[in-house]
Amino acid sequence: MAALMNSVVVRALTFSPAANLPWNRTNGFPSRWVRSFSAMMSPPSKAVVYDLHGPPDSVTRVVELPPVEMRENDVCVKMLAAPINPSDINRIEGVYPVRPPVPAVGGYEGVGEVYAVGSSVKRFAPGDWVIPSPLSSGTWQTYVVKEENVWHKIDKASPMEYAATITVNPLTALRMLEDFVTLKSGDCIVQNGATSIVGQCVIQLARLRGISSINIIRDRVGSHEAKEKLKSLGADEVLSESQLDVKNVKGLFGNLPEPALGFNCVGGNAASLVLKFLREGGTMVTYGGMSKKPITVSTTSFIFKDLSLRGFWLQKWMSMGKAKECREMIDYLLELARDRKLKYEVEMVPFEEFHKALDKAMGKQGSQPKQVIRF
Amino acid sequence: MAALMNSVVVRALTFSPAANLPWNRTNGFPSRWVRSFSAMMSPPSKAVVYDLHGPPDSVTRVVELPPVEMRENDVCVKMLAAPINPSDINRIEGVYPVRPPVPAVGGYEGVGEVYAVGSSVKRFAPGDWVIPSPLSSGTWQTYVVKEENVWHKIDKASPMEYAATITVNPLTALRMLEDFVTLKSGDCIVQNGATSIVGQCVIQLARLRGISSINIIRDRVGSHEAKEKLKSLGADEVLSESQLDVKNVKGLFGNLPEPALGFNCVGGNAASLVLKFLREGGTMVTYGGMSKKPITVSTTSFIFKDLSLRGFWLQKWMSMGKAKECREMIDYLLELARDRKLKYEVEMVPFEEFHKALDKAMGKQGSQPKQVIRF
Repeated sequence: MAALMNSVVVRALTFSPAANLPWNRTNGFPSRWVRSFSAMMSPPSKAVVYDLHGPPDSVTRVVELPPVEMRENDVCVKMLAAPINPSDINRIEGVYPVRPPVPAVGGYEGVGEVYAVGSSVKRFAPGDWVIPSPLSSGTWQTYVVKEENVWHKIDKASPMEYAATITVNPLTALRMLEDFVTLKSGDCIVQNGATSIVGQCVIQLARLRGISSINIIRDRVGSHEAKEKLKSLGADEVLSESQLDVKNVKGLFGNLPEPALGFNCVGGNAASLVLKFLREGGTMVTYGGMSKKPITVSTTSFIFKDLSLRGFWLQKWMSMGKAKECREMIDYLLELARDRKLKYEVEMVPFEEFHKALDKAMGKQGSQPKQVIRF
Repeated sequence: MAALMNSVVVRALTFSPAANLPWNRTNGFPSRWVRSFSAMMSPPSKAVVYDLHGPPDSVTRVVELPPVEMRENDVCVKMLAAPINPSDINRIEGVYPVRPPVPAVGGYEGVGEVYAVGSSVKRFAPGDWVIPSPLSSGTWQTYVVKEENVWHKIDKASPMEYAATITVNPLTALRMLEDFVTLKSGDCIVQNGATSIVGQCVIQLARLRGISSINIIRDRVGSHEAKEKLKSLGADEVLSESQLDVKNVKGLFGNLPEPALGFNCVGGNAASLVLKFLREGGTMVTYGGMSKKPITVSTTSFIFKDLSLRGFWLQKWMSMGKAKECREMIDYLLELARDRKLKYEVEMVPFEEFHKALDKAMGKQGSQPKQVIRF
């Protein structure tokens, strides 16, 4: 490995990156370009970078970053796969509240194989599969060098597409079912945006605990197929918004208990529908705003129906000293994925076609499966 | 006393109430009209009744109700004063979620003097001052007969106008400061509708605990005087809505901490202003909707700012087995009123002018002090 590292030294010294790139690790870039000749170096890394915030399809480009010197507690990971999440797009646009300073390498989650470890690293060995956990910036590149405590070793029997995507969406679903209302078997939840990956995970994780789900989806071509698919995952009821344009929505499901918990990732009318289903004293948790419309609630919903409206943001949750808890849940979720108890569809796209995948992820071609870059 | 009671028996038997009035106690009406001659009877009661739900000024009328037989655990109270609260108006309109069956006597709170007690009643004696606690329907009449456990004896040194109004508004303010966020001295709250009695109580009860308040009021003629008045009660900042039509409202008060708790009794833009002031993770409690406009909130306020929206309804709180706690707090609030540490203005109106007071309470003459009927 050291021989391989040394072979890239000359290229590293002559490498010409984009002008004025600051070298630090907070934005996914290697931090120490100037190095001693005896140091261990990573391979150069092919990376999706952006120098400025703006429309992701115009500000991102694929460049080769120079090798980086590895410290004794660093781990160099050869990335295998990484998704394009909406939050990645928002970070590049500059509209996400927490984002790395530009210039930066895109991406926040993914799975890779350990390529080399620093001299003091004992927990990892080349060949191990790892994910950044909690999430860490700069996963859209072929080689990532970060301190060992960034990485979490996972079972290599995990399907790669799940390993690459297990944090942002499935963990959100798991936390939201745990953190707001104490649910027991026989209870029911309601959600909009049910075809999203979080929505699909909510259905399955609820079902595993004996909890029913009422699922609201957009009116669109193919909604019949979408309904059947969600039912095959365990959804009890799936309705399009227009089906719920009636006064007494609760009358539609006499046999399901009134939900004490609802999830909203849409806003606007779709959020109002979730509120309609909630029982007195119920809680709606907002974790997304796909319609870009606000939530409108009558004052009487709060006073007389005693509704609570809350929000969930995984990144904040993870920042509250939850690393250990987070990793335990990741292991649980990956076990479910290996057992086919947690399923969702993604589209694996070769890294060479990154910009095609980005266009799809940005919704330019209508509704598309989650795009996952395969390095 | 018994002699007096007997003197009204003949009138009771010849009394002609409104046709078809059902005699039961849930709606404030006497329950046992037919009685044995040896029973103890209340005096007849002059009462504000309504036979149907509708506009309070047209469906209410003042009638004389016949004497009612007192059971051994009943207390007959000669009412001294009772307020006209917005919730009383909503009950008569039929739009309040919990309301007595019609026909009914209006009113839910008030203060009275014990006039007579049933044979087994030991806790009360004629002359005691009492309030219904928790609240009880039918206070808009000269004599109320209810079981002794309805009544709570209070200190007769309490000013009558406070004794009559101590529950619905001051107790709401007290509970809202206690039940949602743990506040400590040095913290700050924000509220709209600050000139309301609840708003005035919030300012004073917060101040007593060393908590500052930012107060939002409507733009109107006389708002300068309103501001000065609230400041004299202890308000740290008082602003009209138009003054807050700036991007960075928090910049206006560099020396106050960001509030973790806000109160909304208005809805619409005034609710959005409260939300603007709240710090990350803050909670807004809605207890009224004076503008009749809903609350509109961005999805990002929930996700990234972690705001919580809740509601408070005193009647529900009191129904949850809180009678003892409720009475202890009433005693505390009345002590504050006696010590002039809790102040607000009401207008005492002779019972004969009930319909004038009702018009004022319904807002027909613009903003008016709380109307309190003096029997």
